[in-house]
Amino acid sequence: MAVYTPVSLQTLETLLSAYRIGMLQHREEILEGVENSNYRITTDQGHYIFTVFEKRVKPEDLPFFMELMRHLALKGIPCPLPIADEDNEVLHIVCDKPSTIVTFLQGKKITSPTPLHCQQVGGLLARMHHAGADMKLSRHNALSLMGWKKLVADCAPQADTVEKGLSELIEKELAHLEKRWPAQNSLPHGVVHADLFMDNVFFQNGQLSGVFDFYFACNDFWAYDLAITINAWCFENQKTFSQTRFDALLKGYTAERTLLQAEREALPLLLRGASLRFLLTRLYDWLNHPTGALVKPHDPLEYARKLRFFQDAGAQAICAA
Amino acid sequence: MAVYTPVSLQTLETLLSAYRIGMLQHREEILEGVENSNYRITTDQGHYIFTVFEKRVKPEDLPFFMELMRHLALKGIPCPLPIADEDNEVLHIVCDKPSTIVTFLQGKKITSPTPLHCQQVGGLLARMHHAGADMKLSRHNALSLMGWKKLVADCAPQADTVEKGLSELIEKELAHLEKRWPAQNSLPHGVVHADLFMDNVFFQNGQLSGVFDFYFACNDFWAYDLAITINAWCFENQKTFSQTRFDALLKGYTAERTLLQAEREALPLLLRGASLRFLLTRLYDWLNHPTGALVKPHDPLEYARKLRFFQDAGAQAICAA
Repeated sequence: MAVYTPVSLQTLETLLSAYRIGMLQHREEILEGVENSNYRITTDQGHYIFTVFEKRVKPEDLPFFMELMRHLALKGIPCPLPIADEDNEVLHIVCDKPSTIVTFLQGKKITSPTPLHCQQVGGLLARMHHAGADMKLSRHNALSLMGWKKLVADCAPQADTVEKGLSELIEKELAHLEKRWPAQNSLPHGVVHADLFMDNVFFQNGQLSGVFDFYFACNDFWAYDLAITINAWCFENQKTFSQTRFDALLKGYTAERTLLQAEREALPLLLRGASLRFLLTRLYDWLNHPTGALVKPHDPLEYARKLRFFQDAGAQAICAA
Repeated sequence: MAVYTPVSLQTLETLLSAYRIGMLQHREEILEGVENSNYRITTDQGHYIFTVFEKRVKPEDLPFFMELMRHLALKGIPCPLPIADEDNEVLHIVCDKPSTIVTFLQGKKITSPTPLHCQQVGGLLARMHHAGADMKLSRHNALSLMGWKKLVADCAPQADTVEKGLSELIEKELAHLEKRWPAQNSLPHGVVHADLFMDNVFFQNGQLSGVFDFYFACNDFWAYDLAITINAWCFENQKTFSQTRFDALLKGYTAERTLLQAEREALPLLLRGASLRFLLTRLYDWLNHPTGALVKPHDPLEYARKLRFFQDAGAQAICAA
């Protein structure tokens, strides 16, 4: 479970009086999600999601996230639309924390994607890249190479307590990537979701119906976003690489946006970078989460396995396909 | 049935290539609706509504309608959001006519509203009035007193061919309203939907889930919009006035927006004006629709009955409640 900030009915009613979305009828804690507190609220006008931003989200980044969702929703991406109150504000302080109300998306998460699911996710990703291309605001990706260096310095000393050899794995991989990572702006780039996991996509009747959780969105290579998405969607049981899912995801992506030769060539490296990024943040959380914390950290070793897979010939092979 | 402009799959695919909403999978004619041609289109990203504007909608009014829907949707009103293409355009010429693609709303129309439905509709109307208060664009209501005068001049000579005495009814009513209609800006005013019929509201599981068809929206008294809505929702079988529905609709409205004493006092007159407005346009369509037209015009006599009801003591009585 993960609602960190309990919000009383009275507080919520007071907040809602600034909006024009009807009278509060019901509110329900959403127990999934590990970053922010989320409630599903129901008014006589429909369902909305009320989010309280917890400490991982920096308040100065919120205008970017709000504008990104608005921008994408206006272009038809099925993502939450932040609701403006009477004064056209989309952010409010509740219980001393920033909060927002967004539209509710229909659908459910899936856990075993078919190739058709993967194809739709690939298509959605390419459409988000295009749709975000004319965003006025931008956000630096703090979890790229420089961020990894800091995380490796923090985590490497204790990494072997999680698995023998993990320290060497991350240090060597960082050195490998540092030498080869594409220079800034050397590949097509723009706003990226940067966290398009199965947890953040809804389907309804087999059809993609929603994408959300834009709170890692930032500016980076589009093909790096593709690499993150492949990492998240193309391993069966998060263990065995699925060429079928990979082919389907790439088919969906390239139907909407042609990959440059340089992007195809960089993809094996970007896949390794994406693996290391999630290995490192998960390792950090694993080593630093307080005993008895509400949320069990994600398993860092899932991404150690994925990284090792992409280090092997596999990466070259799949991308030649 | 009412799809006036057949749009080929190829034309639609070409249009969609300017947008970022996925590949066309399916398109379906929507047979309800009498003003424009509507298709439900399905892409691998979800459902959308594609509307071709027919001759009743003036092209110069379209930016107002588009901006209104955008404005209301951003404030959380569950209305269609016009989708912007890659160049941020929401309007396109298709088959020599203007067209737009908007988000799809969940839900179904109802035909026998309960008091709870009416209460929700009242609340929605008040919220739309508030939400539209800071719209930058405005649109003159061509179907107010001056428009009625023109329609009476056009229709009165033939009105008795529809029902004996109809000509006298409309001429006398026009004279009555002309003497008493509130002066411009003498009552709270702003953008009004002006056509909030049961055809234009969706419910899902008993809960209001959508409002659409903003193509009569204009600037007028908010209480006149309330009068139109009462006319549309508060007669059982469109014949017998329902005090219960009326009370519920007013309860919903006033929970969101307090009616001034002047508005309450004007309401009986506004109810008569709203009746005459729909009587006249229906009468005009009835007298002028070509034989064999696709759409059967609405029955003008429904509104003759409603007008007579409001002319009687009933109007004063209900509004005193």
